[in-house]
Amino acid sequence: MSSTTPTEFALPHAFQAAGVACGIKSDPAKLDLAVFVSDVPCTVAGVFTQNIVCGAPVQVSRSRVPRASARAVVINSGNANACTGQRGLDDARWMTAEVADRLGCSADDVLVCSTGVIGHFLPREKLAAGIPRAVDDLASTPEAFARAARAMMTTDTVPKLAVRQADLDGTRITVSGAAKGAAMIGPNMATMLAVLVTDAALSPSEADAALRHAVDASFNSIRVEGHTSTSDTVLLFANGAALRPESAPAARPVASRGDARASDQPPLVPPPLQQLISDVCADLARQIVRDAEGAGHFVTIDVRGLRTRQEARRIAKVVADSALVKTAIAGNDPNWGRIVSAAGYAGVDLRETDITLRLNGSLLFETGSPVAHDAAAVSQSMATGEVHVELDFPLGDAFTRFWTSDLTTEYVRLNSEYTT
Amino acid sequence: MSSTTPTEFALPHAFQAAGVACGIKSDPAKLDLAVFVSDVPCTVAGVFTQNIVCGAPVQVSRSRVPRASARAVVINSGNANACTGQRGLDDARWMTAEVADRLGCSADDVLVCSTGVIGHFLPREKLAAGIPRAVDDLASTPEAFARAARAMMTTDTVPKLAVRQADLDGTRITVSGAAKGAAMIGPNMATMLAVLVTDAALSPSEADAALRHAVDASFNSIRVEGHTSTSDTVLLFANGAALRPESAPAARPVASRGDARASDQPPLVPPPLQQLISDVCADLARQIVRDAEGAGHFVTIDVRGLRTRQEARRIAKVVADSALVKTAIAGNDPNWGRIVSAAGYAGVDLRETDITLRLNGSLLFETGSPVAHDAAAVSQSMATGEVHVELDFPLGDAFTRFWTSDLTTEYVRLNSEYTT
Repeated sequence: MSSTTPTEFALPHAFQAAGVACGIKSDPAKLDLAVFVSDVPCTVAGVFTQNIVCGAPVQVSRSRVPRASARAVVINSGNANACTGQRGLDDARWMTAEVADRLGCSADDVLVCSTGVIGHFLPREKLAAGIPRAVDDLASTPEAFARAARAMMTTDTVPKLAVRQADLDGTRITVSGAAKGAAMIGPNMATMLAVLVTDAALSPSEADAALRHAVDASFNSIRVEGHTSTSDTVLLFANGAALRPESAPAARPVASRGDARASDQPPLVPPPLQQLISDVCADLARQIVRDAEGAGHFVTIDVRGLRTRQEARRIAKVVADSALVKTAIAGNDPNWGRIVSAAGYAGVDLRETDITLRLNGSLLFETGSPVAHDAAAVSQSMATGEVHVELDFPLGDAFTRFWTSDLTTEYVRLNSEYTT
Repeated sequence: MSSTTPTEFALPHAFQAAGVACGIKSDPAKLDLAVFVSDVPCTVAGVFTQNIVCGAPVQVSRSRVPRASARAVVINSGNANACTGQRGLDDARWMTAEVADRLGCSADDVLVCSTGVIGHFLPREKLAAGIPRAVDDLASTPEAFARAARAMMTTDTVPKLAVRQADLDGTRITVSGAAKGAAMIGPNMATMLAVLVTDAALSPSEADAALRHAVDASFNSIRVEGHTSTSDTVLLFANGAALRPESAPAARPVASRGDARASDQPPLVPPPLQQLISDVCADLARQIVRDAEGAGHFVTIDVRGLRTRQEARRIAKVVADSALVKTAIAGNDPNWGRIVSAAGYAGVDLRETDITLRLNGSLLFETGSPVAHDAAAVSQSMATGEVHVELDFPLGDAFTRFWTSDLTTEYVRLNSEYTT
């Protein structure tokens, strides 16, 4: 159940993908248009940026989820279609209609994402030529999925793919995902996009609950520089085709549970299925952090022993956002003072003597006091590029895990270049 | 009423200062011990870091303000005496007692600040030799005050001094201040310290209210990297000596107003006096931002037209903290998308069409839409090192002003060096 390379990549039943180059990016050879399609109407759920300033595709897609009759998502890179007003909204809806025409479905059953430069209008003529080619190229092969993942990339250096499979009630279920990362450069925002597809059967509210649960512990638990993008989107398509792999599945997935929303509790998907979805999200989220622009270290932050998960997350977020912590890590400096003091201003009710810190397994600070340690050895362990920050408190049982990168001169160089 | 150089520096009546080198810093020639003394008992108020993890001197000084019988503050640089437990508290109290012995006052009437490396115990023998020398060196000259300001420095490249004078009710009042900055390097925190002295007469609660008001719009309105230090301290001493310059003033300043705290309203100091104190704080705060480690641009952020000042401050803070905004400014890139999108995730209830942005006077984004502009000309204006961000909203009359610096490769280099 580890992350796989494209050649090992398994696709869920009755999904196809394509990635083509249509000239939105300045290099005409670069893939910049992706389509993911379910052969049959399927469930889709989405989680979107919380930024008030959000791209037209976010506004269009958000209005269409969750739904039971989805067929596809169309994604372009190189242009975010954000801060583009009414014309941007028209362009986003037009993209979905172009795809829907070729699939023979309603435009409302197609979602849309865009990532890239903001404040520029989409080149309709290029998309008008590219969309038919992408639909013609649709295939259910791992290679097609990898091309789609590559067409989502902006400054990512590698495509990001993940897959998990399990036998649930005697049926082999596959959850596959593709993502692009928080690669921060040029006038682009630090946008992340992810598309998950599964042949499990989920109702819209089940898919929504499962996705929100998975995103909370994955894409919402990574920090690169904390700037909320205009375009962040995570979509989960579930077509139920695993249950009837040899025939076309019903338009409405079978075995949907708990859609009535009789209570305020979100419907529960079976824990093994939730685990598959969560694992794919976490795998993709980690890949995004590993490929963050200029990043030299991959940092895992565990915060344990708080009264609530909210408290633990507040501390993890402050540590992950601290420029002083991130520059120290860039320099392999086991600078416990910066980490401990960051925890101290997280706004959580605690005392200095509540704080215990380990760095790559070495105890540096225990219940409020520095601990003698071999700083050179800890620094050497950080030079591997893997850093594990563990903060323990005696205040409760709640915990969280965050992932982040360091802050390097390369990050600043890439983001300072004049690009407007 | 502009900021002055040390040679023009005016000292309030009946204050003395000294700065000596006692060997806490590795370079024995560097000044590292400062003392500020009022010749007579005076009022003191203080504002301190809100970090739960705070240095021993913060804990000791915080417990002693506001008070009416203060005499002095002793400050060392090179060692923050933070994360040092009971021994650190004992050392901080011992420093105040050493000074008090020589001034013939109670230790409780002396405050203490420390800035520098954290997690190390203070070298008592060096301080025991240095404190008597500093007290012997006390003088009421501008040069002595400048030496004291220099002895507070860590990685500051210049001492920070400011003075304002005005005739209030026929009496010439002087407010003078010295500060050290948020220069971020090594294992040090981004600590700022400031000491203000005035020969105006203020009661403890008046001084407290006046200082909090001034700090809110100065030291609390600057951002370098948002990491709250363990040691931040701003102190205001007011000895009333202007009212009786030729004789020793009363132990309790005369003309104290509103100390009864009969209402929940903080006592008001006369607006002209508040202005002097606020101006000195703002002057010092701007000097701190200009001297921030690695900073290449000085950025003024005006946010206007919100329902509350709190909303305006939330937006200003998010813009000032955004690594994407700060790196764009480092590269003279008029990247309006990063600024507008930062405003969008500040957590303030607004719509994209509420946002209007000017950069160095050029209109870049108006009520939600990009405005055609000469990007090269705007970039050229940014290359002067002065950047003015103006965000206007139509939601109310509240506004705020923040100051910040850019984010440069030099900042990262300085803060990544292995130093623990």
